[in-house]
Formats: sequence, structure tokens, C-alpha cells
Amino acid sequence: MRVLLTIEYNGKDFCGWQIQPEKRTVQGVLTEALEAVFGQKITLHGSGRTDAGVHALGQKAHFDVENPPMPVNKIPLAVNVKLPADVAVTAAVEVPLTLEAQYSAKKKTYRYDFYLSVFPRPLYNDFAAQVKYAEEKFDAQKAEKALQKLVGTHDYTAFSSTGRPVKDATRTLYDAHLVKNGDLYSVYVTGNGFLYNMVRIIVGTVVEIALSARPLSDIDAAFATRDRLKCGKTFPAHGLTLVSVEYE
Amino acid sequence: MRVLLTIEYNGKDFCGWQIQPEKRTVQGVLTEALEAVFGQKITLHGSGRTDAGVHALGQKAHFDVENPPMPVNKIPLAVNVKLPADVAVTAAVEVPLTLEAQYSAKKKTYRYDFYLSVFPRPLYNDFAAQVKYAEEKFDAQKAEKALQKLVGTHDYTAFSSTGRPVKDATRTLYDAHLVKNGDLYSVYVTGNGFLYNMVRIIVGTVVEIALSARPLSDIDAAFATRDRLKCGKTFPAHGLTLVSVEYE
Repeated sequence: MRVLLTIEYNGKDFCGWQIQPEKRTVQGVLTEALEAVFGQKITLHGSGRTDAGVHALGQKAHFDVENPPMPVNKIPLAVNVKLPADVAVTAAVEVPLTLEAQYSAKKKTYRYDFYLSVFPRPLYNDFAAQVKYAEEKFDAQKAEKALQKLVGTHDYTAFSSTGRPVKDATRTLYDAHLVKNGDLYSVYVTGNGFLYNMVRIIVGTVVEIALSARPLSDIDAAFATRDRLKCGKTFPAHGLTLVSVEYE
Repeated sequence: MRVLLTIEYNGKDFCGWQIQPEKRTVQGVLTEALEAVFGQKITLHGSGRTDAGVHALGQKAHFDVENPPMPVNKIPLAVNVKLPADVAVTAAVEVPLTLEAQYSAKKKTYRYDFYLSVFPRPLYNDFAAQVKYAEEKFDAQKAEKALQKLVGTHDYTAFSSTGRPVKDATRTLYDAHLVKNGDLYSVYVTGNGFLYNMVRIIVGTVVEIALSARPLSDIDAAFATRDRLKCGKTFPAHGLTLVSVEYE
């Protein structure tokens, strides 16, 4: 049978999702726990990699298992006792053998957290990026306008890091919006797929526009020219959280 | 001149506020940074101790300094460059020589964060306590009722850990309320002073009442009998944050 897991992790002490020899990775730690629970070799397929430091609230991954010794809804409890405190399986469901965590995914939602402060904020440091400006400099309405311009179907080449070229950089962003909670800002983006570093570059661009360090028109220019220089800097990994992955 | 600092820290990697030989403490790390900035011996007086693991958003502490080489509002910048990432000075003001961070404090506000889940939540683990029940079991209205009963001027002996007796355990709680934010609950309490472990025992008691593991009437009984057993367990330190300390 094929099982689809929902996984939460604090990315701080992981070298990202993808299994690598000698490195502590989420896929590595989970595979070890699953093999201990089921007593058989398990190959875990994630919905996609997350970089070192990136967190997840709802990462998805599937694996196949022969004759599991417990009902599928008891798998989280069994696996969690084998896992360290910074990763947990929060749900498990049986899915058709045709479902692939990566290729069947229809939508992903990411959240990016940041705060504006000339001082560092020790209580936010692990999961939010510091933007070293006073909060008065940040125009949230401009940020919202920039996010709205990013929604739609576009070639997002300019919003990706060079070095990982793809055949087709066309993606659809269904939603992009800003939420303020106390002194913490969160950018939420939902799309059918994301290029390498795309969310972190979107946030860098939107923040620069909101600080009036870059004109709003650079977004149109970035789409038209595919020029990385029309976008802002790549924001750090530790502010990023994969919130959910949706299937049909 | 006397300077009053506002201090934020992530308590995770500190052995609490109070300076101790060979231990990493907030008071110790701050004193070292202040002495490096001012080139003179500095004695830092906090508004009160916080235990190992407890966080602060607005701890206060005062110190006296002769002829500081910068205006008082530049002290945070100067000190922060000497501090590690898990502690920061967020404000500094000159105060009269009669003000004492501890004895002049009129009000303190604490926040206690927790979540209800049979699974651990890696993204909350550093700053919120896990209550191992399904969220449906938690009656937030009952929790609110319990918090309202705690407000007022009472002898809170039952709500303190034994081993640190005080002459007079009468305190005034001005406010106590529950806030829900996503799947995270926060209890806020404001009072003129708190006994040892008082907030953590208040939260343990309120959560047990909200889970129907303890009757609401135990709060009256706790006040009447001063019996620690009428209260719930002491919740863990890492869910607690000192939010603010107020002066006249």
C-alpha cells in the first residue's frame, strides 16, 4: 500500500530535506524512523526539497509498505516515538498507487516571516528574517500592490536563482498576500509550483518595493526582461515555511 | 547617571537571568557586554529573576554609569554589537537615581503559550508547551471563567512552589485572559507581583479546568485552604515569556 504523510519540521538543525551521506536531513531522519517501525527498507519521496534552514508545517511525502503491522491512522504515533523533537508526522493516509507526492501535487503554499527592526529580535531569530529598517519606513499597501502584480501566470525566470535552469519557467501564482500579526509580517504565496529560491526572491523584491528602495514597475520589467537584477535580494532560508501541499 | 534597559531574550540556551559562576546567564552575558562598552565595572539590577528556559520580550534592568561616551539612546546599538543573537537591548532611557528596576516596578505582564495536540509540534517546541490532548477536549470558555476567578487581590500561596516561602503571599492580579492565534493559545496575566512559579501553576490549573480534569471550584478552594494540591501541575518554563514591566 502507498501512504502519504504530512510532516512538520523546524529546519534550524537540518541540512535541508534531501538525504545526503553524513548530513542530518529530514528525509534521512524520517527514513530511519520509518525503517525502524516497519522493519523493511523504505524509500520516502517528498513533494519537493526544502533548503537547509527552511521549515515545514505541512510537507508531504509518500512511501510504499508491505503489510504494515498497524492501521494507517496509527502510523504517526508509531513513527513519532522514533523521531527527534524537531520533526513530527502529523497525519498519514492511504493513497492510490498512482499518487506521487511530487508529481501529483497541484498547489503549494509557503509563508515567509519577517520583522522590521534596527535591533535584532531574539524571540524571532529562528524563524523570521530581520529587515534592518524602522517599521515606519515599510509601506504595507505598496507591499500588497507588489504581491497582487505577482499573481497570475508568468515566466518567473527573473525570480529564480541562476545555476538551476529549467526548460519552462512558467508558473501560476493563485494567491499572494501579506498578514501582520503583532510586529511580525507574513507573506503567503500559493502556486502550482515554485522555481529555486522563488519565494525568497519574491519576498526580497516586495520588501524593497515597500521600503521604496525599488519601483513597483520593476515587477513588470522583471517579467518582460527575465532579468534577475530587476528583483530584490534573496531573503534568508530561516524565514521560510512550507505551509501546505495540496492534491486533487 | 542611572540607565533603565529594556531587554529581549530567547531563554532556551540560558541558565536563567541571575548571574552564576561558570553558567551562561542573561545577567552575566549583559554585564560583560556593558563592561566592554563602558570600560568600567557595571552592576546590573534586573526587575526580577527569570528561570532557565523562560523568555523575555520586555525584561527591565537598571545600572549606574559615570560619563558614558554616547547619548543614552545610542546605548542599545553599542551594546547589541557585543551581544550574542539570543539577547538584545531594545531600549535605554535615563531614569532618576531613586528608581530601582525591581522595587519600583508597579506591574508585570507575562504570557504563557501552549498548544493542544497528541503529536509534538516541532515549530512550537521552543516557546510553547504541548498539552497532549485533542483540541476538542479543551473548553476555552471554562478557561476564561477560571482566569476571571483568579483576578483580584488574594493570598496566592497555593499557586506557588513550596521551598521559597514569603512573608506575605498576597498579590493583586489586574488582568488574566486567553488569546487564541491559529492553533496556539496564550494566557496573559498582569499583576503587581508574582510568587515563585505562580504563572506556570496558574496555567497548569486553568488548563486542567478547561479539560474538565479539575472543577472550577478548586480555585476558590485553593484561595481558602492555600493547599497546593488544589492547583494543577507546574507547566514547563519554555512556554513562559515576561512581556513587560511597568513603572510609574
